Amino acid sequence: MNEGILIVISGFSGAGKGTLVKELLRTYDNYALSISMTTRAPRAGETDGREYFFTSREVFEEKIAQNGLIEYAEYCGNYYGTPRDYVERQLADGKDVILEIEIQGMRKVRRMFPKMLPLFVTPPSAAELKQRLRGRGTESPEAIAGRLSAAVREAEGIGDYEYLVINDDLRDCVRRVHSLVQAAKQAPFRNEGFINRIGEELRILSKGE
Amino acid sequence: MNEGILIVISGFSGAGKGTLVKELLRTYDNYALSISMTTRAPRAGETDGREYFFTSREVFEEKIAQNGLIEYAEYCGNYYGTPRDYVERQLADGKDVILEIEIQGMRKVRRMFPKMLPLFVTPPSAAELKQRLRGRGTESPEAIAGRLSAAVREAEGIGDYEYLVINDDLRDCVRRVHSLVQAAKQAPFRNEGFINRIGEELRILSKGE
Repeated sequence: MNEGILIVISGFSGAGKGTLVKELLRTYDNYALSISMTTRAPRAGETDGREYFFTSREVFEEKIAQNGLIEYAEYCGNYYGTPRDYVERQLADGKDVILEIEIQGMRKVRRMFPKMLPLFVTPPSAAELKQRLRGRGTESPEAIAGRLSAAVREAEGIGDYEYLVINDDLRDCVRRVHSLVQAAKQAPFRNEGFINRIGEELRILSKGE
Repeated sequence: MNEGILIVISGFSGAGKGTLVKELLRTYDNYALSISMTTRAPRAGETDGREYFFTSREVFEEKIAQNGLIEYAEYCGNYYGTPRDYVERQLADGKDVILEIEIQGMRKVRRMFPKMLPLFVTPPSAAELKQRLRGRGTESPEAIAGRLSAAVREAEGIGDYEYLVINDDLRDCVRRVHSLVQAAKQAPFRNEGFINRIGEELRILSKGE
């Protein structure tokens, strides 16, 4: 069994990351979703271990101290983070683990998992992004402007990602992402074991002739 | 029409690069093969513009002086090189141009075409490579040992390639290479136009709200 890879999915708010991830999990059986840990209280309908692992500040801070989180951040007075043991167990199990976080989180994850695969999801155009944000019908013009300003900054970080995923047609996009994951597994830096082994074998064989 | 990308295929002698390239060209219509220029005399059955562009030393050296070759080398008293104009015309035409050269050539090509895609083809194991070399039935044990020694050095350069292509089953391998080419086109450094455009559009839209 080969170890899985850790996939970080970032992208503009409104790019359709959530739906894309849901469809990936539904369509292929090699993926697992990383579940975040948080100190905020569960909302109605949320179950521990499904939406989040809910925990206390004490336990969360203990996790931080033990280096038990891949990344974490404090937001509106609550901690949010990615437990390391869950991710490592899934990877060892051969699962490709998906983590949906933004660019600062991605950079932290990369320090601990240098072989992780960072993907950036974007709609085909800015006009399309604005239309999708408006289409939600839940956000004020100010909130939309705020998201667009955030997107301007996010766009400046796209160069740090391994692939750009243009989310035009959902089905097609799901297939393309799956194909990008397979491709990424063929990068030499993710195949050091194979490369070292074949190099060693070649050395032995060339001397044997 | 999008511009094509330049694909450099290297790999161990005996890895099956030639057959792989032939099948890629036969199976998909987005590929074009780069044709080398040489000063060696045509052999029986070789046609100018098919196997090679045959030319004189004078013309070849003029090409060098004009920076008209992407890469070239002298081998057994003859020049071999890749004419730049042919490749650029095919790329502009939307073709993904395949160039089969070794690692030194790849590094030269990269200087002129930093967005080119370098692929390294290898059999699944060194034992399999040796068997394929023996299976040719045309090479002495010394020649095979020489090829294996060359492979030891080549293996040390695999890290310079974007993808490792393990050629086990030909049909499957052809499909995988095609899929790697599509994936490579999604790398941010090959999409600067798109990234700059969406960044600019976002800036304008976020101010407009």
